[in-house]
Amino acid sequence: MGVEYDGSDFAGWQLQHHAVTVQGCLEAAVSQVAAQPVRLHCAGRTDAGVHALGQVAHFETTAERPPRAWLLGINSHLPPTVSVTWVKPVAAEFHARFSAIARHYRYLIVTRPTRSALMHQRAVWTHHRLDVTAMAQAAQALVGQHDFSSFRAMQCQAKSPVRTVHALTIQQRGDFITLDISADGFLHHQVRNIAGVLMAIGRHERAVEWTAQLLTLRDRRQGGVTAPPHGLYLMRVDYPTQFQINIENEQCTLNNYSVFTG
Amino acid sequence: MGVEYDGSDFAGWQLQHHAVTVQGCLEAAVSQVAAQPVRLHCAGRTDAGVHALGQVAHFETTAERPPRAWLLGINSHLPPTVSVTWVKPVAAEFHARFSAIARHYRYLIVTRPTRSALMHQRAVWTHHRLDVTAMAQAAQALVGQHDFSSFRAMQCQAKSPVRTVHALTIQQRGDFITLDISADGFLHHQVRNIAGVLMAIGRHERAVEWTAQLLTLRDRRQGGVTAPPHGLYLMRVDYPTQFQINIENEQCTLNNYSVFTG
Repeated sequence: MGVEYDGSDFAGWQLQHHAVTVQGCLEAAVSQVAAQPVRLHCAGRTDAGVHALGQVAHFETTAERPPRAWLLGINSHLPPTVSVTWVKPVAAEFHARFSAIARHYRYLIVTRPTRSALMHQRAVWTHHRLDVTAMAQAAQALVGQHDFSSFRAMQCQAKSPVRTVHALTIQQRGDFITLDISADGFLHHQVRNIAGVLMAIGRHERAVEWTAQLLTLRDRRQGGVTAPPHGLYLMRVDYPTQFQINIENEQCTLNNYSVFTG
Repeated sequence: MGVEYDGSDFAGWQLQHHAVTVQGCLEAAVSQVAAQPVRLHCAGRTDAGVHALGQVAHFETTAERPPRAWLLGINSHLPPTVSVTWVKPVAAEFHARFSAIARHYRYLIVTRPTRSALMHQRAVWTHHRLDVTAMAQAAQALVGQHDFSSFRAMQCQAKSPVRTVHALTIQQRGDFITLDISADGFLHHQVRNIAGVLMAIGRHERAVEWTAQLLTLRDRRQGGVTAPPHGLYLMRVDYPTQFQINIENEQCTLNNYSVFTG
């Protein structure tokens, strides 16, 4: 299934006993429709405050329902800030997390003298002007296969700090700056740490070369501040074509959110 | 001053004794900075749930502060869902409502099989496909000077039902349909009633000619349903050039909200 959510009021994706999480809401809804307890597995366990347009999750069940019944049934049991965008049966060997070959995140920044009411909790606001050219130049050092130790959270539990960033593009549109990053996978806080470093470079507090230096240092303590979660969106997850789910993902995410365009 | 707000949690613009309103929040904030009670007047008194990117309001005060002190001071006393985007001194004869020569509203529709979590309270959702060509054709009948009695709320207190619509354009971008309407002024619920009628035409429940028929009938009871408030945005207000405030308006609204663009 494809899942969209406004992460503002959730304590992240992952199930917790005493907090409202996206996984908790979805498992309750799916279990209602399945009339049996269901465990969900997702492609990327997002932090508290992080949003998603194209999260992917799978579950196993003996319950049989037409895809449309799953879709409408699950949505009818969810709070308004979570919605399922598509549901389809998959091969037994499919796993939302382990089958994924690429993840696409967007980090959204508003640069204005004053904060934006409509983008509250939907983007990070800075009153600084950011040098987008310097940011884009610094970003290029991060593309490719690298040891991202300087960009991973202290508590990150991944075995290897090596990841391959396929693309990292930065664009300005009016007061908005979007940072689009695709990789085979991400370490804990990797996108937010990259956003923090690039914003410091954009403010000219650090040189363009800082990204390359940090890769070499492999030391989180030398890295920048972790940018706030509410600017981050999980946009899309890619799978090998054999699973036939990329078309659904594409339809529900990219190209669809040109909302307040002038 | 220019004002942006997420109308979701407000009982509209206008001051009420037992409800939280945009005017109430702003008057409290401005009065704090002015250190004296201040009364605000706005260009368009929006309904509960309606948003604004470019509301304009004015106030009179004997307090003297630099524009930047007003701007930062007022914002520091506002809830996160309201922000002031610019402040500047104006001529004594300026009035936010009576000096306005044009208002620009946008009505935002999401057409998808399932509701959107991120656009909850930010757009109206319909699972119907809408015929945008039919809607655009029907919209043309409303452009120009007309008696809009069929499109005004029963409780509308305007003396004349005649308004001049300067432009009414409808565009589809992915799953989003935007309805942009500009006029010298609007009757109560006029934009939402027009949106309701055009959506019925888009669903092919009514013929393209219905808009022209309704203008001739001049009877609200023949009109369509009032579309929900949360799809509506006050985008911009225009004033005669002598007041020199159109540049500020332009900078803060149009061109700036291409947020989730692919």
